[in-house]
Amino acid sequence: MVQRVAVIGAGPSGLTSIKACLDEGLEPSCFESSHDIGGLWRYKEQPEPGRANIYQSVVINSSKEMMSFSDFPPPAELPNNMHHSEVLLYLRLYAQAFKLLQHIHFQTAVVSVRQSPDFAVTGQWEVQTETREGQNKTHVFDAVMICTGHFTQPHLPLKDFPGIENFEGRYFHSWEYRNAEGLQGKRVVVIGIGNSGGDIAVDISRVAEKVYLSTRSGAWVFSRVGLGGLPVDLVGTSRMDMMIGRLFPSWINSMLEKNLNRSFDHRLYGLKPKHGFFTQIPVVNDDLPARIISGRVQIKSNVKEFRGSTVVFFDGSIIDKVDVVMFATGYNYSFPFLPSTLQAKCGYRLHLYKHVFPPGLTQPTLAVVGFIHGLGAINPLAEMQARWATRVFKGLTTLPSEETMRKEIEKDTATMHQRFSCSERNPLQVDYIPYLDSLAEQVGVRPNVLWLLLRDPRLALEVLLGPCTPYQYRLTGPGQWAGARQAILTQWERVLLPFRTRVEPEPEISKPSSKLCIIMAFSCAALLCCFFYNKQQLKIC
Amino acid sequence: MVQRVAVIGAGPSGLTSIKACLDEGLEPSCFESSHDIGGLWRYKEQPEPGRANIYQSVVINSSKEMMSFSDFPPPAELPNNMHHSEVLLYLRLYAQAFKLLQHIHFQTAVVSVRQSPDFAVTGQWEVQTETREGQNKTHVFDAVMICTGHFTQPHLPLKDFPGIENFEGRYFHSWEYRNAEGLQGKRVVVIGIGNSGGDIAVDISRVAEKVYLSTRSGAWVFSRVGLGGLPVDLVGTSRMDMMIGRLFPSWINSMLEKNLNRSFDHRLYGLKPKHGFFTQIPVVNDDLPARIISGRVQIKSNVKEFRGSTVVFFDGSIIDKVDVVMFATGYNYSFPFLPSTLQAKCGYRLHLYKHVFPPGLTQPTLAVVGFIHGLGAINPLAEMQARWATRVFKGLTTLPSEETMRKEIEKDTATMHQRFSCSERNPLQVDYIPYLDSLAEQVGVRPNVLWLLLRDPRLALEVLLGPCTPYQYRLTGPGQWAGARQAILTQWERVLLPFRTRVEPEPEISKPSSKLCIIMAFSCAALLCCFFYNKQQLKIC
Repeated sequence: MVQRVAVIGAGPSGLTSIKACLDEGLEPSCFESSHDIGGLWRYKEQPEPGRANIYQSVVINSSKEMMSFSDFPPPAELPNNMHHSEVLLYLRLYAQAFKLLQHIHFQTAVVSVRQSPDFAVTGQWEVQTETREGQNKTHVFDAVMICTGHFTQPHLPLKDFPGIENFEGRYFHSWEYRNAEGLQGKRVVVIGIGNSGGDIAVDISRVAEKVYLSTRSGAWVFSRVGLGGLPVDLVGTSRMDMMIGRLFPSWINSMLEKNLNRSFDHRLYGLKPKHGFFTQIPVVNDDLPARIISGRVQIKSNVKEFRGSTVVFFDGSIIDKVDVVMFATGYNYSFPFLPSTLQAKCGYRLHLYKHVFPPGLTQPTLAVVGFIHGLGAINPLAEMQARWATRVFKGLTTLPSEETMRKEIEKDTATMHQRFSCSERNPLQVDYIPYLDSLAEQVGVRPNVLWLLLRDPRLALEVLLGPCTPYQYRLTGPGQWAGARQAILTQWERVLLPFRTRVEPEPEISKPSSKLCIIMAFSCAALLCCFFYNKQQLKIC
Repeated sequence: MVQRVAVIGAGPSGLTSIKACLDEGLEPSCFESSHDIGGLWRYKEQPEPGRANIYQSVVINSSKEMMSFSDFPPPAELPNNMHHSEVLLYLRLYAQAFKLLQHIHFQTAVVSVRQSPDFAVTGQWEVQTETREGQNKTHVFDAVMICTGHFTQPHLPLKDFPGIENFEGRYFHSWEYRNAEGLQGKRVVVIGIGNSGGDIAVDISRVAEKVYLSTRSGAWVFSRVGLGGLPVDLVGTSRMDMMIGRLFPSWINSMLEKNLNRSFDHRLYGLKPKHGFFTQIPVVNDDLPARIISGRVQIKSNVKEFRGSTVVFFDGSIIDKVDVVMFATGYNYSFPFLPSTLQAKCGYRLHLYKHVFPPGLTQPTLAVVGFIHGLGAINPLAEMQARWATRVFKGLTTLPSEETMRKEIEKDTATMHQRFSCSERNPLQVDYIPYLDSLAEQVGVRPNVLWLLLRDPRLALEVLLGPCTPYQYRLTGPGQWAGARQAILTQWERVLLPFRTRVEPEPEISKPSSKLCIIMAFSCAALLCCFFYNKQQLKIC
């Protein structure tokens, strides 16, 4: 019987894992190598080796209602897209509200996680920790949740860049970047157009002489500011939208790309990727188009080689007198404390059932939480994984046989590689709502929209047609939260409130009313669609 | 007979005035109080009293094809919206190409401009100058062109802000602002949402704890990046668009505001002004919406009073612990070297015929150039004023009688006050193309679209349906430039070239082809419209 659970890491995934343990009556002990919670979201003045780092200007890509934990709506007054300091504040409030801090051992790193000798019977783990003072200790736990994130090991592919060894300027990985201090008037090449590469290029371009943003494959770029100024991830991301997207994938894809090109023609801007919008996590960047039109950032092709301080690109163009090269070339993932048998791969991803459980263990007492990517915030994904994992630990939910899991992983991987542009650096990607739903189904918390429509039509329509906020997974089943309905029905109020900073004589809230119109208009269609939707989802999961 | 002309100031208006003098065979002597050309566009590390100042991050609002001088297209490789350093580069290239520098007396300020005793006969002026070393000299000129700009005298309306005298933080005018250095982690209130206020708020918000942008009346805000990523002032600003706008003003206004609200709902963002889009120069800002959605900038109502370090707003809200207040409250205009009789006002504007000539002079030998505002770049407006003024100096174009001019000014002012939201700080605004056309008519260089359609249909369609670039005023008449036709027909190439920084296997230029489609589609309608257009314009002028 699982009772004591080791949680490794006190970032967002670790915090929600502690919470999930407590909710299931388990006893979590969280080991955090630093002195504070927050993981990635704790801004560090100096990069700390082995830890995720962010730069000063980071604003979260997801809006607050979409990145929140399912039973802890963010304070209404927080902005929709929070600065990292506010994300950390939110995590602190979460930890405080659910008394999570008392379960965390700070400045205690996990050195190794090994199966106990009687693992086959007990499913227990020997977890060796080391404090900052060098004190080693071995603990025995009934289960382990690995929440160490995946932005800790910078990938610096120097061998792919001939001549870099003799580059006359300075070069470093984006992991080290804090702000543009010291780059005033410099000529800077940023390699890689992931979200960090885009952000950092824009950041530096405000002080540099010129920034050249080199990309091999281009990217779809969009702003956090969506239609009408609403957070972009609140519009067009409902369950209904997802359903339409699954029914007419090409149409939705082409419509979306057309809209993005309406904002700025990705081909004209040198950014058009060969891959479709949904194939790879797109770049969220509010400023890049304006930095390109003003010439402060120039998009370049992939770097072929370095010659002294000259950078030669694959299209034959050359930039002289480059002072700084920034490698925004992503991260490797690693779990150095885990036995290598548990780090088997399937394609580029880890060999984990639904990205959580290694299938080869005789006892399902080890779970990876938060090692996931989808077109949406990680927090709700990690939270759902943690809720599922703790249910599995307790035996309240059972996993399929090892063979079934292995087959499932193979099949999943094949489908994933077919749909998404996976690589060493982007090992996995899931469809956001379907993945959440499939885990929620396991936990027993997947909202039944049809049933809701009959029982609480107002709520049902918001669940079906509104943004798919995490509160939907607290309406029913284990971990049900009495505030979930209200949280869903008031989510637009929390979205609108931070905008209300200049009170006008005739305040008029445009969106909820138009939202209401849409709801009314769709309400008839919804009933019919719901039948189809529930049927289709059961097939998928 | 006018021969020697004093040009006061070597900013863009001064440079183009020298050029206009040379084109007319006059002898310009330009007096520039600083050591260099560029005026506003010469970035100064420290603000210099009595001169216009810009901050480090300034990018010009107008795109390069729209802000260029009519016979000097900007180099194709320059970005569409230039950084101030590139605008200065363009001005240097202009000065170099037309050998303007040799006519400039640097570090020579004009102390006074007075009519010579025999002015009634000669129309001459006594211009007193002072060098940096304190050497005074009086010159006699046949004519004077005043090109001293109107962003030199910061307006700091402290009396409108009770309690400012005891404000515990630091306050200063935006004229002093260079960059956000020293504002890290501060709480900053920016008062005024002109183009400077918006830019500076965004700038500071990247390092400050929070920026509060206070506005009395709101503003229409749009990005430099227009539809499809093209410079916004190249789309929807053609002669045809103007004509449609004149025929259906309410429809165009409402369509435009609808489009702006589609980008972000101005009411939701606390920015909705009471005035219509065309009533007041709108705010060009690429970043403001994203800074608002991320809470880095908060829009506030007008400031009511200061209490210690607390700022109280008119809507009753309060912000505590404010460290810095920035007054982006605009500029007063002044011409200290001119006799007060020549500074009479009509409404808020100067009493100048077509914003150039004081009507009361017996000889039209004094012109104000570049003291103008329109929904478009000032350079082409100033250039046209200079071309007209020099023609008037030479007697090649005559002005109406004093009485007619006075009546015209009164009428113009009444119309202007009715159409635009003029004030002490925004004394004047003109309709861009109609104003240019009305001066061009005087100079004899207004393009005759109907005649062009018959003679050179390709060119005519670009003149009618393409952006109204300044080259149109060099196609014919005095100052005709042989390169004008080519400059117009190649303007889209110069727009597209700076985007082509990442060469792709299949380069595809989307806009000219779609532009071509529009041209083809409109070509039939154009012929008919042209008749009407020419007829209407003649009525206006």
